[in-house]
Amino acid sequence: MTDTAMKLGAVQAYIDGFAAGDAGAISALFADDATVEDPVGTGLKSGRAAIHEFYVGAMVTGAKLKMLGEPRCAGDIVAFPFAVKLEWQGQKSTIEIIDTFKFNAAGKIIEMKAYWGPENMKSA
Amino acid sequence: MTDTAMKLGAVQAYIDGFAAGDAGAISALFADDATVEDPVGTGLKSGRAAIHEFYVGAMVTGAKLKMLGEPRCAGDIVAFPFAVKLEWQGQKSTIEIIDTFKFNAAGKIIEMKAYWGPENMKSA
Repeated sequence: MTDTAMKLGAVQAYIDGFAAGDAGAISALFADDATVEDPVGTGLKSGRAAIHEFYVGAMVTGAKLKMLGEPRCAGDIVAFPFAVKLEWQGQKSTIEIIDTFKFNAAGKIIEMKAYWGPENMKSA
Repeated sequence: MTDTAMKLGAVQAYIDGFAAGDAGAISALFADDATVEDPVGTGLKSGRAAIHEFYVGAMVTGAKLKMLGEPRCAGDIVAFPFAVKLEWQGQKSTIEIIDTFKFNAAGKIIEMKAYWGPENMKSA
């Protein structure tokens, strides 16, 4: 498998994991010592256990992801634009986000960053 | 001006700079000690002079940018998806890209990263 195919496969598995509500399928994409910064500028979730917990919480919101363009592969990173639909504080919301996944040599995500701010969150 | 308005203004000025073919207007958005990594995984352009030279080269391709979604502001960074239309090796091409701009306290871009790979380049 090429590096590009591996990265695109991880993005698809991430989308599919949300569609299935399967936090375990998502946290399995990460390295043991991975970090998640979501959104960028807030505290890091460090290590697979903390990351798993984070995605368990995300599943409670019913979050579903829809790609909004092509994944962009560059170096050891893939960046991709998407929308997440979820229920937040009793309100159905859509947030437009850009994620980056950085991969280690084993093809696991070692660093995830999510770029979004309050102005990207809409009622819907 | 809020931080968010400043970041969105820089993105718009970047798009407008390409529309006008004005490399100077673009390099003026960067700090003196900024870096540009385009695409991510290739060598850094370091310092405003090298960055200006890079954008002078980009203007020769006739590059024009079109936003493909909302800019996402997070921490001291804005990430945004766009397409660039340009002429590359005599061929009209479109590339789908995601850029991130990181800002310093003075509101200048201190670090620019462009995420794209060969699979994001189409004849058009």
